[in-house]
Amino acid sequence: MKNIFFATSNPNKFEEARNVLSEYGIKITRVNIKATEIQTDNIEDVAVVSVIQASQMGFLPVFVEDAGLFINALNGFPGPFSSYVYRTIGAEGVLKLLEGEKNRLSKFKSSVAFYASNGLKKIFSGEVTGKISEEKRGTNGFGFDPIFVPIDGDGRTFAEMTMEEKNALSHRANALKKLAKWYLKISAQGAL
Amino acid sequence: MKNIFFATSNPNKFEEARNVLSEYGIKITRVNIKATEIQTDNIEDVAVVSVIQASQMGFLPVFVEDAGLFINALNGFPGPFSSYVYRTIGAEGVLKLLEGEKNRLSKFKSSVAFYASNGLKKIFSGEVTGKISEEKRGTNGFGFDPIFVPIDGDGRTFAEMTMEEKNALSHRANALKKLAKWYLKISAQGAL
Repeated sequence: MKNIFFATSNPNKFEEARNVLSEYGIKITRVNIKATEIQTDNIEDVAVVSVIQASQMGFLPVFVEDAGLFINALNGFPGPFSSYVYRTIGAEGVLKLLEGEKNRLSKFKSSVAFYASNGLKKIFSGEVTGKISEEKRGTNGFGFDPIFVPIDGDGRTFAEMTMEEKNALSHRANALKKLAKWYLKISAQGAL
Repeated sequence: MKNIFFATSNPNKFEEARNVLSEYGIKITRVNIKATEIQTDNIEDVAVVSVIQASQMGFLPVFVEDAGLFINALNGFPGPFSSYVYRTIGAEGVLKLLEGEKNRLSKFKSSVAFYASNGLKKIFSGEVTGKISEEKRGTNGFGFDPIFVPIDGDGRTFAEMTMEEKNALSHRANALKKLAKWYLKISAQGAL
């Protein structure tokens, strides 16, 4: 079974990734570091800089993942700073900002950046469109999952779904599946 | 007159710094770049990384300044991400988050990081305690100035003051005055 390292300080992300990638026969090992993230409105740039740093620790091939919740009525807030915003004002703060707001449209975006020992770099993006709920619902998942209702779902928030149900729809799973398909293809070609 | 470069993409910050430092006989020249900022809860770390990058552009000596508004009732939010938060949810968003909140206590913090051609680095911090107003008042200054009332003032927000009045109290002026005194001292000692 092929092995890739996933550099993340977030155990929930790791479990989701393990669940997605195992279906492709790819095993991942967690490197528990928090790579430096730069401030930018673009999560792809955050992921690229982080994976370069992670690659320098010698665990290769490696990938990192950066994600954000982009709310239309809030001009994309909290975006690349979702983790900080979650730790400070929380889902409650976001709900308060949207009080009286009819436009609840939002997107979760994910960027997965991959780095191999031969210097090969590649980035994969995933997103899911949804609506911010009127209140928190559910206890699964993490972060803003309790207030995000994917439009292709059945009305439940990500936090009301099992991990498998979330992974059938989520931004992160979407990006990771692209990584998996590409990785299997180039491995078969002997490029790694 | 001594000259230092100030690397900033923010013309308002530059004008405030020019006003403060001219009183010490220090002339500053603007380098209009936005150095990469890292994501961290500590604005000193943001400033240190930025000034190293700015120093590599060859304009020396150089300083950068990073600032943030830390609101007690919001666990320090928006903190190091004040600029992004201002651009997305604005002062109105912060006021909405504080609706019904009696604890309006907050701090503006500033970190000034300096870098000389001989590799000398130094960091200066300044802060000012205040309260978040119930509504926006005033049109001077920039960013969250219209909702910040310094406790050592007369009840006006920073945006209701002249630049000179704000500079007598502000976090940024506070840090810059420390830079000025130190810079004059080491220059007199021939250390630069």
